[in-house]
Amino acid sequence: MVTRRVDLRSDTVTKPTEAMRAAMATAEVDDDVLGVDPTAFRLESEVAEIMGKEAGLFVLSGTMGNLISVLVHCDTRGSEVILGDDSHIHIYENGGISTIGGVHPRPVKNNEDGTMDIDSIEAAIRDPRGELLYPTTRLICLENSHANSGGRCLSVEYTDRVGELAKKHGLKLHIDGARIFNASVALGVPVNRLVRAADSVSVCLSKGLGAPVGSVIVGSKSFIAKARILRKALGGGARQVGFICAAAFVALKENIEKLEGDHRNAKILAEGLNQIEGLKVDVAAVETNIINVDIVDSKFTAEQLHKNLEEHGVLVMSKGQFRMRIVLHHQISSSDVHYTLSCFQQAFPGCNKKTASDLETDTPLITQ
Amino acid sequence: MVTRRVDLRSDTVTKPTEAMRAAMATAEVDDDVLGVDPTAFRLESEVAEIMGKEAGLFVLSGTMGNLISVLVHCDTRGSEVILGDDSHIHIYENGGISTIGGVHPRPVKNNEDGTMDIDSIEAAIRDPRGELLYPTTRLICLENSHANSGGRCLSVEYTDRVGELAKKHGLKLHIDGARIFNASVALGVPVNRLVRAADSVSVCLSKGLGAPVGSVIVGSKSFIAKARILRKALGGGARQVGFICAAAFVALKENIEKLEGDHRNAKILAEGLNQIEGLKVDVAAVETNIINVDIVDSKFTAEQLHKNLEEHGVLVMSKGQFRMRIVLHHQISSSDVHYTLSCFQQAFPGCNKKTASDLETDTPLITQ
Amino acid sequence: MVTRRVDLRSDTVTKPTEAMRAAMATAEVDDDVLGVDPTAFRLESEVAEIMGKEAGLFVLSGTMGNLISVLVHCDTRGSEVILGDDSHIHIYENGGISTIGGVHPRPVKNNEDGTMDIDSIEAAIRDPRGELLYPTTRLICLENSHANSGGRCLSVEYTDRVGELAKKHGLKLHIDGARIFNASVALGVPVNRLVRAADSVSVCLSKGLGAPVGSVIVGSKSFIAKARILRKALGGGARQVGFICAAAFVALKENIEKLEGDHRNAKILAEGLNQIEGLKVDVAAVETNIINVDIVDSKFTAEQLHKNLEEHGVLVMSKGQFRMRIVLHHQISSSDVHYTLSCFQQAFPGCNKKTASDLETDTPLITQ
Amino acid sequence: MVTRRVDLRSDTVTKPTEAMRAAMATAEVDDDVLGVDPTAFRLESEVAEIMGKEAGLFVLSGTMGNLISVLVHCDTRGSEVILGDDSHIHIYENGGISTIGGVHPRPVKNNEDGTMDIDSIEAAIRDPRGELLYPTTRLICLENSHANSGGRCLSVEYTDRVGELAKKHGLKLHIDGARIFNASVALGVPVNRLVRAADSVSVCLSKGLGAPVGSVIVGSKSFIAKARILRKALGGGARQVGFICAAAFVALKENIEKLEGDHRNAKILAEGLNQIEGLKVDVAAVETNIINVDIVDSKFTAEQLHKNLEEHGVLVMSKGQFRMRIVLHHQISSSDVHYTLSCFQQAFPGCNKKTASDLETDTPLITQ
Repeated sequence: MVTRRVDLRSDTVTKPTEAMRAAMATAEVDDDVLGVDPTAFRLESEVAEIMGKEAGLFVLSGTMGNLISVLVHCDTRGSEVILGDDSHIHIYENGGISTIGGVHPRPVKNNEDGTMDIDSIEAAIRDPRGELLYPTTRLICLENSHANSGGRCLSVEYTDRVGELAKKHGLKLHIDGARIFNASVALGVPVNRLVRAADSVSVCLSKGLGAPVGSVIVGSKSFIAKARILRKALGGGARQVGFICAAAFVALKENIEKLEGDHRNAKILAEGLNQIEGLKVDVAAVETNIINVDIVDSKFTAEQLHKNLEEHGVLVMSKGQFRMRIVLHHQISSSDVHYTLSCFQQAFPGCNKKTASDLETDTPLITQ
Repeated sequence: MVTRRVDLRSDTVTKPTEAMRAAMATAEVDDDVLGVDPTAFRLESEVAEIMGKEAGLFVLSGTMGNLISVLVHCDTRGSEVILGDDSHIHIYENGGISTIGGVHPRPVKNNEDGTMDIDSIEAAIRDPRGELLYPTTRLICLENSHANSGGRCLSVEYTDRVGELAKKHGLKLHIDGARIFNASVALGVPVNRLVRAADSVSVCLSKGLGAPVGSVIVGSKSFIAKARILRKALGGGARQVGFICAAAFVALKENIEKLEGDHRNAKILAEGLNQIEGLKVDVAAVETNIINVDIVDSKFTAEQLHKNLEEHGVLVMSKGQFRMRIVLHHQISSSDVHYTLSCFQQAFPGCNKKTASDLETDTPLITQ
Repeated sequence: MVTRRVDLRSDTVTKPTEAMRAAMATAEVDDDVLGVDPTAFRLESEVAEIMGKEAGLFVLSGTMGNLISVLVHCDTRGSEVILGDDSHIHIYENGGISTIGGVHPRPVKNNEDGTMDIDSIEAAIRDPRGELLYPTTRLICLENSHANSGGRCLSVEYTDRVGELAKKHGLKLHIDGARIFNASVALGVPVNRLVRAADSVSVCLSKGLGAPVGSVIVGSKSFIAKARILRKALGGGARQVGFICAAAFVALKENIEKLEGDHRNAKILAEGLNQIEGLKVDVAAVETNIINVDIVDSKFTAEQLHKNLEEHGVLVMSKGQFRMRIVLHHQISSSDVHYTLSCFQQAFPGCNKKTASDLETDTPLITQ
Repeated sequence: MVTRRVDLRSDTVTKPTEAMRAAMATAEVDDDVLGVDPTAFRLESEVAEIMGKEAGLFVLSGTMGNLISVLVHCDTRGSEVILGDDSHIHIYENGGISTIGGVHPRPVKNNEDGTMDIDSIEAAIRDPRGELLYPTTRLICLENSHANSGGRCLSVEYTDRVGELAKKHGLKLHIDGARIFNASVALGVPVNRLVRAADSVSVCLSKGLGAPVGSVIVGSKSFIAKARILRKALGGGARQVGFICAAAFVALKENIEKLEGDHRNAKILAEGLNQIEGLKVDVAAVETNIINVDIVDSKFTAEQLHKNLEEHGVLVMSKGQFRMRIVLHHQISSSDVHYTLSCFQQAFPGCNKKTASDLETDTPLITQ
């Protein structure tokens, strides 16, 4: 019988806190389609200011944020966007930029650290003299931190260089910032500095920050004005949306500081898992709150291990046949980390590289 | 100085009740993108059952509900939809079915009562033998009640006949049910009977029912399965969306019975306004909660009258140069109706067809 | 046994003349995708000059010409076009502007003479302040002559007024000039004057002018530059296309002057048909080369009459249950007209309003 | 002064032969939009039979052929196509499958020989269980011969394996056969065998075969029926298109046998160029009629060399800063090859790896 549940499938699974519920219960709201919900406005302004951009717009999801951003930058028929071939937009967002937006993607190889080579990006930019054969490149997209690489961070230097490249060719730069605060915290760089080169950022509040629902996209006033229209066209305009924004505001205020703890928990768990014979984790690559765990002997497939862990209440995601993904978040305590580790260990008895007790279990982990 | 505010711009402007706030504060929620939010599921099931359809899907707005419904029925390139030339989808939803969905609209003239002539609908259905020249007709859309006609209702007989026509030609029938409960109440027909002929209905909970946010689309299981995928692609999938659903559930339970009062208020207000010389209201056409008021002498334009009323705290919408739209809802009391009437009267001094006191001001209006 | 064939289905059915064949056999050609086919260039320049516009582009069909024109004017997502509800673009071009181009159509009622009321057009233009709800009106389309009204002509005054309206609202004006030369000849107005108000015109060469294939769109240099790119994207760029252009050039030079004869033939045939009891033709409405014939007693359906005539080698098109369409062209001689009339008469024996011999059969019809 | 012109930019630049002109001058034609042009029908049937497919459809260009094929296979919103990241469709066709068709491309790395690794293709196929996040894979595209790899051929074994993979996953296989006859000749495999695994092939007649204009797409009857409708929607339906088809028919009959000579010329020229110090050609990779020439010292950029050669009447294409592309065709004689070689040699004086006289200039090249 499962008596404990540790949900490590994603940082989207967090449950709203009491403070969020209280904020919702008392939120001042009005009709946001008519543009007069004060709480939505407050959240949008706050996120815009934090990101160092002129304006913000609340959207229902990161997918909607990216979709609107790409489509606004590529508002003319015949547009192309350069993006990572392992980026969230290319892989996990239903191909919406093409199937809904008619934008042609030009994927460039993602390196293991989530970057694309600057030279490769530049080579992918279409020569405007070839317009008779080519779509028109209008946009470059980065993702920071980069989910499929295991949450690795793009440095401010790298981001700035891509921004310069974009400027040189008259392109826009969008950052999928689903976990931009994780990157900011991990790199020790203020988030507004980290995205300074970007024309737009999609900032998710319902991942690491734990809001129940929502993202905010930020950019120039004219970008946001166009985004607002497109949000309406997609059916993403909502009436008294301030309730959700109120909870998101709490998330923004309370949870950024907890990300560092998530990252430390991730590191500890990664190191522990890497001690288990049969598993392999690139511990150095665990820069934020995501761990990719590879099963290196054939005892288990990811699916089998997944099932085994589920019986003990530990939920993870399998990615392919021999890889699992684990995501830490503010509702995973130090104790949960150790419990998780022990569940993995029971699945691989007798084959730990070193005993669990050798791990620094006394590290004062934050608890929430 | 305005001391009172009567907001008659739309029934979307209602403020959430304490019961809704309480429901949100205690709602059981989970990740709805992963398909496990129990409150979303409960709302969807409830609306589906009320409408007599197999399944439901929560969406952020009526626009999203219509967009998804049309696109699911028209999922093949080269599709055409027949809809009213004065319908909400054709006029007020950004042309999204074309600009986002690539569906070709074939508008048919809306009569004053919101219907389209059955013969005209049939004439607009494309002959499949002309497929080399024609798009393929796949869908007919009705709107009940019909907003731009002033909230008039499509009868169950009419709806059934359109349904038969659709069936005969192998087409689907979608009903934009932004105010389907108003129609059901006004007609005295159970709502599931009223939409029996429809393959899908978009049911809005944030208009007359007063939920802060949201609609539910209903249809067959396979329709809803496709709708769920498209919702994700549009960015309309949300995480702990159960909060909003909880409030919507309260709206559904508490407010249907209040619609009758809204309709009576509308009738009273319509009759009063029609007494004012200089204004004209087709009182018989006020079947639900919407009133179209025409300014028939040139003393005021709609914009001037709008301003005048605003100074007294009465908010209405102007529709064109000499027409105003007034929408009743559950937060407009009997007293508000009389106050509104008096504000109109002060704008047209000395030209009332009969004095205000002649009106049956003692009618026991419901109050909420 | 059929010994004679008179093909009146459309003016697209003409057979190329010997002069056209000879021009093709000797045409100087090169790779038009590389932009160096001299014969294509000569045709494009010639048509542009005739129409009084800066530049021209050869396209394969009138449908491609209209599609490219609408899409170039509406190159931004969220665009709307105002066009006749009985226009060729709206009815017969597969809904391509939406299903391929994502443009939202806003049809306005076509009057019997092919016009739309100026007031109705203006009312259909979206208020830019409503951009949150509305697509953006960018274009008005006219069709001159107007096929579905029976080839009636839009006057230069009407066209200019629509042009002024477009300018006033910052819109473009496109004319579907599938039969613009017919209109010019019938109105006695130079064709460049007739289209002066237009930003673009799609000019068909394979209808009345009898070219085997092709249209030319004309407009400003920047419009044509964009059109060239879009033509390539649609797969409409061709290599040694000069062959077709050479034949079209002959058509342009030789056949404009024959249109007047087609119109006279149409008038004679219309009058003759209207004499037959059981048929009804609005003779006054036959302004160019198209005749709509209505069957007014129930003896025949259009399909039955169609079959009867076919047995005598006379090909017409049925349009609906009791209407037939007849189109004259330069390969229909005076003799063909009289033969056609006699075939209709045999189908309605004893019910001619007056005898065929009363008709002015001696009019010296042109023959080609 | 240039006295000679050798156009090696592409095999699309060929001039029509006298036989083609004669065929055009005498072609029997009719209205192909009405489906009755006998010459179009004859060409379509002939190509379908040669390719071993049920039916064919004439289209104006290879781009139109690919666009229609991809869109017919991906006729449902939310479709994805797997194709080479260096394929003609992905690089040179304006991104039309997305910008016009709304299809999401999933590019897979093209190897140097034009193949994609089978494993990589399989890895790119979307798991149908992930439909909430993923578009739906519907199609795999190959290109044979593969232009950007320098005209290398996909073997019948490789093609069959991709076909099996497609079948296993319920996908369709389309082959961009712009130069499928070159591949067939070079591999010594009958062309119908080479494309047996494909559901559709776009066969170009205006490249190596030298027709002035046109391609034919082939596939099942139902595929072609849908393609015909889409061709009309794109404006690709033409009236008396039989003229062009007549010339293309001649090309098909006369020029396939000349391809072998083109390939031998290409080999000879490649070997000669590779002897020049400063140039580098992978001679073994020259399998058909295309040569990629790299400039390996910095004396010239491709643009400079391009200019130098142009002064001597030799036209080639530059591809990037230090690469030139040369394409042989049936109007390049043995003498042209030697002239071209001498022009390259004068540009690199004194640095030939071996003297030109060492080359087997006596090889009896075919001349046409």
